[in-house]
Amino acid sequence: MPRTILIEPRWVIPVEPAATVLEAHAVVVDGNRIAAVLPAAEAAGRFPDAERVELPGHALIPGLVNLHTHAAMTLMRGMADDLALMDWLQGHIWPAEARLVSDEFVHDGTLLACAEMLRGGITCFNDMYFFPEAAARAALRAGMRAALGIIAIEFRSAYASDAQDYLAKGMALRDSLRDEPLLTFCLAPHAPFTVSDGTFAQVATYAGELDIPVHIHIHETAREVTESLAQHGLRPLARLEKAGLLGPGLIAVHSVHLDDAEIALFARHGCSVAHCPSSNLKLASGIAPVARLLQAGVNVGLGTDGAASNNRLDLFTEMRLAALLAKGSSGDATAMPAHRALECATLGGARALGLQDRIGSIVPGKLADLTAVNLSASELLPCFDPVSHLVYAAGREHVSDVWVNGERQLAGGRLLKLDEPGIRARAQHWQHRISAK
Amino acid sequence: MPRTILIEPRWVIPVEPAATVLEAHAVVVDGNRIAAVLPAAEAAGRFPDAERVELPGHALIPGLVNLHTHAAMTLMRGMADDLALMDWLQGHIWPAEARLVSDEFVHDGTLLACAEMLRGGITCFNDMYFFPEAAARAALRAGMRAALGIIAIEFRSAYASDAQDYLAKGMALRDSLRDEPLLTFCLAPHAPFTVSDGTFAQVATYAGELDIPVHIHIHETAREVTESLAQHGLRPLARLEKAGLLGPGLIAVHSVHLDDAEIALFARHGCSVAHCPSSNLKLASGIAPVARLLQAGVNVGLGTDGAASNNRLDLFTEMRLAALLAKGSSGDATAMPAHRALECATLGGARALGLQDRIGSIVPGKLADLTAVNLSASELLPCFDPVSHLVYAAGREHVSDVWVNGERQLAGGRLLKLDEPGIRARAQHWQHRISAK
Repeated sequence: MPRTILIEPRWVIPVEPAATVLEAHAVVVDGNRIAAVLPAAEAAGRFPDAERVELPGHALIPGLVNLHTHAAMTLMRGMADDLALMDWLQGHIWPAEARLVSDEFVHDGTLLACAEMLRGGITCFNDMYFFPEAAARAALRAGMRAALGIIAIEFRSAYASDAQDYLAKGMALRDSLRDEPLLTFCLAPHAPFTVSDGTFAQVATYAGELDIPVHIHIHETAREVTESLAQHGLRPLARLEKAGLLGPGLIAVHSVHLDDAEIALFARHGCSVAHCPSSNLKLASGIAPVARLLQAGVNVGLGTDGAASNNRLDLFTEMRLAALLAKGSSGDATAMPAHRALECATLGGARALGLQDRIGSIVPGKLADLTAVNLSASELLPCFDPVSHLVYAAGREHVSDVWVNGERQLAGGRLLKLDEPGIRARAQHWQHRISAK
Repeated sequence: MPRTILIEPRWVIPVEPAATVLEAHAVVVDGNRIAAVLPAAEAAGRFPDAERVELPGHALIPGLVNLHTHAAMTLMRGMADDLALMDWLQGHIWPAEARLVSDEFVHDGTLLACAEMLRGGITCFNDMYFFPEAAARAALRAGMRAALGIIAIEFRSAYASDAQDYLAKGMALRDSLRDEPLLTFCLAPHAPFTVSDGTFAQVATYAGELDIPVHIHIHETAREVTESLAQHGLRPLARLEKAGLLGPGLIAVHSVHLDDAEIALFARHGCSVAHCPSSNLKLASGIAPVARLLQAGVNVGLGTDGAASNNRLDLFTEMRLAALLAKGSSGDATAMPAHRALECATLGGARALGLQDRIGSIVPGKLADLTAVNLSASELLPCFDPVSHLVYAAGREHVSDVWVNGERQLAGGRLLKLDEPGIRARAQHWQHRISAK
């Protein structure tokens, strides 16, 4: 018989229905599922034998969904800052990757990322990197939900020799892991400037056959758009459209440089945008038109990108920055209010991954991916609206408890299952190897 | 005889000289002053009887200077979000202030702000609010350095009846507190749209006589500029220039809407800008042209603004956001590198306040305002460059120890002298009063 727990926070913020805050309610978790959301007194009466978790100063929210990351790049955190995207990629990141990336590197870096993400209330991440089998091992060890990228890129790496080889390895991995309840897969053609039309066509075929999302960097920089026009006579999105890649499964990462027709195209095809505001600013790519995307009805999720361009895997920072930038860049202070930012960081990510029936909100029948945030610290007083505080005032350091698939992974700010000293020792090991060039 | 302490962090980041990181060094504090910065082994030999504070995973930086806040507004944190500046002021903030602001409100709100700021590594704040005597009491109780605003505004409040009365009260307060080593004063005419030409003239006279800075909101919104043109036939900065207020003492808060001639005017007169990036985004005022200001040689400090428009008094967030926005809005990823952001948050603020000979960098002879940041958490690993981490990866939650004027106010993340439960109880009290309208 599955174990039943009653979580009794000060506030339940279910995200669905929108803009709702419940007080004096309990969330009933049965095994790996949310069984009910009830007034606390009623819950106690109906489930007298349940284990109770009292969180008297806390908000309970759906686990955060990090819609775009390269988790293993934690090992390159802060290695090269204050550089433009192509200098950063070509002068620093790609050479380091060529020298270092291995199954072991990806495992250790992803595990470090999982520790950081779980402590910050993230329960699910959408990853794109080499050696996804190593990322899968790390996610399972951490008990996190992950969407793994079946990466395709035209250049050779320690992982694969060419786009065919990348796709073949990714597809084989998906077959071998299809019974893991925490794992799903996306096709992940890297970017328009690193993937050929032929590979895009093949990705489109697989996406249609398997009905899984397509995760791609797109319209990140102005240079990407002008170079595509010069080389292909088309803007990158038009190339994707031509390849048949636009649809509800498309996760268009960055989407900084969009004209009105492209926003309408996203809306018409039901595409999702993975908005990565910190990374877009840090690499001077620009500011995505999120207020206009939301107004057009495009689904928006939030991503941290990798720790080499952020340099934190922290969706609290991204929620706040997304909400502030939407206002500051549109001139409309009512753009992306706090509830909407929280929705993007949870249900928006779930929708993009095709997981909206399983995660992203606190609704009976969904899986129990839950995050508790302690709003009782002095810097969070007074509190007139817990959702305002979650987005504008709180930080990941206020996350106290996290459940993934009904399993408690964080309690009182402490990771319950991960060997943090071991993870830190491996980070030190890699720091020495990276520095010793 | 003054007590001597040796602080032995992993890294000393003195800010002067620029872009310097010292390893295996100690900072010697004698009474309230920095006596020396020495190799650790030499310091131990020269000061064998000193008290030693070992901080093996920490960076030691100058105490952060919050160049613009309304500290007491912590009590209105998150009271009204997602609104444009004038709606927010006229519809929410000003009515609440009219109903609530008192000596007691300002004392309690400022003390709450001091607790938040000290815990976040801020040692000095530049305040502008009603009842500055109450703010002074709170700052002294917290052991914080503060520059208090001699506020001038043309409308009546519980504090004063008209601009003359505001100025008279502020000047009298300055006289009564001139022997307090932690306190200095600025003239603080509120903003161009709330202060008359006559009052500006009087402020200019006082500023000349007393040689103290002038702290003013200026060019915050496009509307402020167009309304000034309609009403006065001049842009607000031209009005200040006409009043004789431009000079090295001017702290131009916000400065979002500046043309090239105005940037050159700031540079020529040696004015300082108090950049408040979170507040400017949240109220949809826009993005200050910080990359261009820095390039023109204008001194830039960072401010949180009040907690009603931020909603955190956190200079780590402002450093990161300032650095990211400078890149993202200028299209230049090399704009405002991490060292420069840290300099703005410390020495930039000190210069603006005319305190650059006393605080803002870790230099022998300066006062010992120091902040230690623990960079050993998993989310800060690996660490290739501690300054990158301070700006891009760390948060205020990593601040462990703070000294102000040689007195330790925070140790291991705990406030040593403030009664936090009492401060929190007062915040709750005011929340009930604010909510009970």
